[in-house]
Amino acid sequence: MVRVGILGATGYTGVELIRILSNHEDVQIKYLSSQNFNGKKFEDVYPSLKGFCKVELQELNIDDIVENCDVVFTALPSGYAMNIAEKLCNCGVKLIDLGADFRFDDFKTYKKWYETDKDDYGSVSRVYGLPEIHRQEIKNAMVVGNPGCYPTSVILGLAPALKGEIIENHIIIDSKSGVSGAGHSPKLGNMYAECNESIKPYNVAKHRHIPEIEQELSNLNCEDTKVIFTPHLTPMTRGILSTMYCKLKKDISIESLHEIYSEFYKDEYFVKVLDIGEYPSTKSVYGSNFCHIGLEIDKRTGTLIVMSSIDNLVKGASGQAVQNMNIMFGIDEDKGLKMVPVFP
Amino acid sequence: MVRVGILGATGYTGVELIRILSNHEDVQIKYLSSQNFNGKKFEDVYPSLKGFCKVELQELNIDDIVENCDVVFTALPSGYAMNIAEKLCNCGVKLIDLGADFRFDDFKTYKKWYETDKDDYGSVSRVYGLPEIHRQEIKNAMVVGNPGCYPTSVILGLAPALKGEIIENHIIIDSKSGVSGAGHSPKLGNMYAECNESIKPYNVAKHRHIPEIEQELSNLNCEDTKVIFTPHLTPMTRGILSTMYCKLKKDISIESLHEIYSEFYKDEYFVKVLDIGEYPSTKSVYGSNFCHIGLEIDKRTGTLIVMSSIDNLVKGASGQAVQNMNIMFGIDEDKGLKMVPVFP
Amino acid sequence: MVRVGILGATGYTGVELIRILSNHEDVQIKYLSSQNFNGKKFEDVYPSLKGFCKVELQELNIDDIVENCDVVFTALPSGYAMNIAEKLCNCGVKLIDLGADFRFDDFKTYKKWYETDKDDYGSVSRVYGLPEIHRQEIKNAMVVGNPGCYPTSVILGLAPALKGEIIENHIIIDSKSGVSGAGHSPKLGNMYAECNESIKPYNVAKHRHIPEIEQELSNLNCEDTKVIFTPHLTPMTRGILSTMYCKLKKDISIESLHEIYSEFYKDEYFVKVLDIGEYPSTKSVYGSNFCHIGLEIDKRTGTLIVMSSIDNLVKGASGQAVQNMNIMFGIDEDKGLKMVPVFP
Amino acid sequence: MVRVGILGATGYTGVELIRILSNHEDVQIKYLSSQNFNGKKFEDVYPSLKGFCKVELQELNIDDIVENCDVVFTALPSGYAMNIAEKLCNCGVKLIDLGADFRFDDFKTYKKWYETDKDDYGSVSRVYGLPEIHRQEIKNAMVVGNPGCYPTSVILGLAPALKGEIIENHIIIDSKSGVSGAGHSPKLGNMYAECNESIKPYNVAKHRHIPEIEQELSNLNCEDTKVIFTPHLTPMTRGILSTMYCKLKKDISIESLHEIYSEFYKDEYFVKVLDIGEYPSTKSVYGSNFCHIGLEIDKRTGTLIVMSSIDNLVKGASGQAVQNMNIMFGIDEDKGLKMVPVFP
Repeated sequence: MVRVGILGATGYTGVELIRILSNHEDVQIKYLSSQNFNGKKFEDVYPSLKGFCKVELQELNIDDIVENCDVVFTALPSGYAMNIAEKLCNCGVKLIDLGADFRFDDFKTYKKWYETDKDDYGSVSRVYGLPEIHRQEIKNAMVVGNPGCYPTSVILGLAPALKGEIIENHIIIDSKSGVSGAGHSPKLGNMYAECNESIKPYNVAKHRHIPEIEQELSNLNCEDTKVIFTPHLTPMTRGILSTMYCKLKKDISIESLHEIYSEFYKDEYFVKVLDIGEYPSTKSVYGSNFCHIGLEIDKRTGTLIVMSSIDNLVKGASGQAVQNMNIMFGIDEDKGLKMVPVFP
Repeated sequence: MVRVGILGATGYTGVELIRILSNHEDVQIKYLSSQNFNGKKFEDVYPSLKGFCKVELQELNIDDIVENCDVVFTALPSGYAMNIAEKLCNCGVKLIDLGADFRFDDFKTYKKWYETDKDDYGSVSRVYGLPEIHRQEIKNAMVVGNPGCYPTSVILGLAPALKGEIIENHIIIDSKSGVSGAGHSPKLGNMYAECNESIKPYNVAKHRHIPEIEQELSNLNCEDTKVIFTPHLTPMTRGILSTMYCKLKKDISIESLHEIYSEFYKDEYFVKVLDIGEYPSTKSVYGSNFCHIGLEIDKRTGTLIVMSSIDNLVKGASGQAVQNMNIMFGIDEDKGLKMVPVFP
Repeated sequence: MVRVGILGATGYTGVELIRILSNHEDVQIKYLSSQNFNGKKFEDVYPSLKGFCKVELQELNIDDIVENCDVVFTALPSGYAMNIAEKLCNCGVKLIDLGADFRFDDFKTYKKWYETDKDDYGSVSRVYGLPEIHRQEIKNAMVVGNPGCYPTSVILGLAPALKGEIIENHIIIDSKSGVSGAGHSPKLGNMYAECNESIKPYNVAKHRHIPEIEQELSNLNCEDTKVIFTPHLTPMTRGILSTMYCKLKKDISIESLHEIYSEFYKDEYFVKVLDIGEYPSTKSVYGSNFCHIGLEIDKRTGTLIVMSSIDNLVKGASGQAVQNMNIMFGIDEDKGLKMVPVFP
Repeated sequence: MVRVGILGATGYTGVELIRILSNHEDVQIKYLSSQNFNGKKFEDVYPSLKGFCKVELQELNIDDIVENCDVVFTALPSGYAMNIAEKLCNCGVKLIDLGADFRFDDFKTYKKWYETDKDDYGSVSRVYGLPEIHRQEIKNAMVVGNPGCYPTSVILGLAPALKGEIIENHIIIDSKSGVSGAGHSPKLGNMYAECNESIKPYNVAKHRHIPEIEQELSNLNCEDTKVIFTPHLTPMTRGILSTMYCKLKKDISIESLHEIYSEFYKDEYFVKVLDIGEYPSTKSVYGSNFCHIGLEIDKRTGTLIVMSSIDNLVKGASGQAVQNMNIMFGIDEDKGLKMVPVFP
C-alpha cells in the first residue's frame, strides 16, 4: 500500500488526483494540504467527492508528510516544490511535482522563464515525467517533473516523426485548451460569461510551456528544434487539442507515416494512433488518460499535420502523475487509470 | 462470468452501458445489435471506446442471443422489447429493458400513454427496476423495466417524504434535463446551434414519464397521487435536476426532515442526502451512478422543496440497468459502478 | 438630445446600457463612472464596444453629474443610489436605478430584506419601473426603481391571470437564469469550469427578489399573494426562463385563457403571447427587449402553467431601463430597443 | 426602397439576413422561398422573428421574383444560383449569392472543387464580394459571389501583410468555427451532445474554401500563394477565429507592422486593428459585422502571427451580403449594419 500525500489538494489537479486515486487499489491517501480550506474534510469542499474522501485538509507540515507518506504530489505555485524536495528526498519520500519546478534539464532555462533566486537544483536529481519517452529513468527517480498539459499533447504527437527524421526542426503548434487549464482561482478571464461563445488566443509566442516543449523535441530530434506556439482558451471545461504543422523532409505516403506512428506506440496503452482519415476530438478522451493522435499529409504543400487530443487534467496532469507513481513504485502502469472516456 | 447482450447498442444508453461494463470484472459482452452500424466493430462507431470494445455489431437475431447471453439489455423503440421478452424468458435469458415496455403495474396505463396492439404482458412477469425501492423483487425477476431518467430523480427525491406521510398527494415537479436525454438520432431541436444558450420547456403536462412517476409515488404513499410535471431541455449534455414542490401536511423542522431522509437512505451507496443548506448540481454527479438530494423548507408558505440530481445516462439509464443486473445475478450491487463523478 | 450618465458603467448592466444607447439617436452619453477602470476609455475596457464609446471613465462626482446629465442610470451596490437620489432630484436630474434601492412601496420591506441605516426614502418619491404595469406613473417620475430580472419575467407572466382573477394567491415559481445575472466580479461559483454542464438551485426560498415579486403580484391581485421562489443557475450566459404553477380558481379553456392574455398585451410592443402549444425559450429573445409568454393548462390537476422568457440583461435590466427613460422623456417607447433577437 | 427576395430563406444565413434587414430602413422584404416550410409565415418558423416578418414562404418561382424584387439573395445548394443568374440579370434583378457559385475568377477552379456540368459562367459577369478589397467592382456588379466565412476572416487578416510584401507566399491557417457554420440541417456531427466539450478538426487540408482563399491571396500578393488550411469545429454557436502563421520576408518591428495594418484599414468601418498586445476573440464581435485583427511577431523564429475574428453568420455571410447590397445600390455602406456586438 503506497501512502500518498497531496500538497495543494483543492486545486483542479488536486481534486482530479483524488478522483483517480479513489479507485486505485494499491494506494492510501494519507495527507492533504490546502491553504484555503484548512480544517475541512476534502469531501466537504468538493461535493462530487462525497463519500470518497474524508481526509481532513491541513496546513503544510513537512514532518507530518515525512512520517505519513511514501510519495507526495505537489500542485503548488512555482518554486514551492523546489523548497521541500531536498528534505523529502533525504527522508526517502518520493516527489511528483505537477508544477514546472523540475521539468528542465538545464536549470538556466527554468531561471529564464520562471522567477527564482536559486541557481541550480542542489543535490536533487530529477526526471522529465513523460512515461512514453522517459520510462526507464522514471523507474528509479526520486523526483519527477510532471509535464505540462500542452507539452504532453505536443511531444506525444511529434515524437515518432522527429525520431524518424521525417520533419524539419521548425514546427508550428496551434493548441486549444479548455478553461479548467487556467486553474481554480476566480479570475475575470475564466468566468462563464466571458468564456462561453468565445475562443481566444493568449500568451501568443511567449507561453512558458515553450522551453519545455523545445527541450524534449530537441532531445528526440538530436538537433536544436524551435516551435511557434499559440495557445487558445476554448469554451469547454476539459481537453486540449494540438494541431501541429511540420515541413516534411522528404516525400512520404500517409500509409508509411501511419505505420511509423503505429509501430512507435504499439506497446503504449495510453496512446492511440487513429486510423487514416480519422481525426481526434477532445470529447473522445474526456475524463480519461488517453492521447488520441490523427495524421494528415498536405501533398500540395509538403506539410505533415499532426493532431493530438488529451484531457488536460488527466493525461495532461493528474492521470500522468499517477502513471508516473505507478512506474516509480513498480505497480502496473495502468492501475487506477483504466477510466473509459465519458461520451457523450 | 455473466454473458451480456445489448440490443440497440449504438444509442447513447448503449455506449454508456459499454463504458460501464468495460470496467466490470464479472461480465463479458457477447452480443451487440444495431440497425444502422451493422457489420462494424463497436469501437469504430464510437472512438471514445477505442481499445475497449471490438465486438462486431449484428442484426438482431433471437437465436444468437439465446445461445450467447445470460442477460440482455434492450434500448429499442417502444414495443420491441415486449415482442421478444417471452421467448427470452422461456429460454432462461434475463431481460433489462431501458425503454418503457415493462415499467407499468397496470398494462392499461401503458396502453393509454404508448401505442400498442397488445392488451397484456402475456406470461411475462415484470418488476419496476428502481433498486432502492424494489430491491427484493428485482432479485428474482426475469424481466426488469428500467425506470425512466426523470422518474428516477423524482421518486428517489420524494420517497422518504411520501413514506413518512409528511406531504400532500399533489406535487409539482419542475425538471431540467441535458440534451443527451433526447437520444442519438439527429433532430433539429437537439442541434448545438438550437440548444446552446437556450433553456426551454417541452411536453408540458403531457410527458410520458408522468404515469410512471404517479404509479410509484402512489405506491409509496398508499394513496392516489398526482403530479404536475414540466420537463425542460437545458444547454448541457448530461444531467437531470428535479425541483419538487410539496405541501407539508404538518409543521416540521428542516432538521427532523433531514433526519428522516438520512435514515431512509442510510444503507444506500448511490443516494447521498446533502447537508442542510447544501443543494445538488448536475455537475457533482457527472458520469456517476449517484443521486444527490437537497432539502429546503419554505416556512412562509408551508412548502417542502426537494431537489435531486442524477446523471441521466447513468443512474437515469445505463448505470441503474447495471445495478439491476448485479442484483439479479447476486453480484455486489456497486460492482463496476464506483465511478467517481468527473469534476470539474 | 438627452444627456446620459451611467454610474457603475463597467458592470454587465453598464456595458449593456452602452450597447443599447450607442444605437439610440436621441441620446448622448456624457458621463461614465467606474471604481476599477478609472481613467480608461470605455472601449478599452470592453473590446466589443471598440469604436462605439470613447468616453473616459471617471470617479463618481456628483457635481459633474449634475452639470452634464439629464438622467442618470445607477448600477451600484445596494444603498449607494439612495445616497445621491435627493441631491440629483433637487437639481432636476432624473434617476433610473438598476439596483433595488427604489423598488419598494413600503420602505420597511426594503429594510427587512436589504441592509440599511435609513428608515424612509426621505423626500424622494419613486415608482416601480415596469412599464407594462406602471406606465402612467413612470411618465412623471423623477426616480424609477428598475425591476429585478426575475421579477420582470414573473410579473409579466402572471399579470393577466391575476388581474383576471383566474388563479389563487399562492404561486410556485421555478426560475432559471444565465450566469451573467451573477455579475461581472470574479467568484468561484461563476467560473466556466464550475458552471458548464451544471444546473443548480441557489438561495432557495430566500432570494431577495421575493418581496419585490409579492408586492407587485399583490397589487395586481388586490389581495395578499405569496410565492414560493426557486432560482437556478443555468449553463448559459444570458436569459431567464420562469416556469410558474398556479392553481386555477375555476375551469377555463386554454383558448379563453389565451384570449385574456392576448387582450391584456395587445398594445404592448415588447410582450409577445405565443400561440397555443408554443413554449418560450431563452434563445428566442437573446439580445432583445422582448418577453415571450407561453401558456398551458394541466386539466388533470386544475393547474395553469405560465412560462415566460426574457434576456436578463435587456428586458431584465438595461433594456427596460432605457424603455423607462424613453417614457420619462416623452421619446417613443421602442426607440433604440428594436433589436431583433440573435438566433441562432 | 430596395425590394428584396431571399431564396432558401429558412437556413441560418436566411434568418440572419432577415434579422439584419428588419432594421434596414431602405429595404422591403418582398419574397421568401423555402423548400421545407412552404406556406408558413416566416415568423412562425423562427419564433425569434415574431413580430418582425410576416412574409409567407413560397416555392421558388422565377417570374414572381422578377416581378417583385430588385435584388435577390441566394442561400441555396451549390449550382442552383448559377441556374437562375442569367435570367435574373437579363431582367435587371441583381444577385448576391451566399454560396460558392460565383466566387471564382477562373471557372475551372470552381469545376475542380465543386460538382458541375457547366464549363463557364455563360454571359454572367461576377465579382468576388469582399468590399474591403473589391469595393469598386462591386459598385457596378449585377452578380456578386459573397465570400465564404473562413475566407473572409483569412483574407482580411492577411491583406495588409501581403500587399506590403512583408510575408512569404506559403501560409499556415488554423481556423476555428462555431457550429452554426455547419448549417441548419440536422446531422449527427452537429448535435449538442456531440459538439459540447469537443473541439475537432475536419476536412483537414481539403476544405473547399482553400481555392477561394488562394485566389484572393495570390491576387493581393501578385504571386502564386499557397495555404495549409485546417478548420476546427468549436463548441460555440457563432464565430470564427483564424490564427495565421506567416514567415516574415524581413525583420520588422511590431510597431511598424501595426502601423501598416492601421493605415491599410483606416477608412474601413468594419475592420478594427486591435492595439499591440491585444488579441481578438469571437465573443467581442458576436452578432456584429465587425472583423477584429490582432498581431504578434515571434522574433525567435521570424514569424508573423495574425489573428482575426468575425461572426461567421454576419461578416462571414449575411452581414457582408447586406454590405454588398448597400454598395450595389448606392446606400450608405453601414446602413442596417451598425449592430453593436452582444457582450457578454
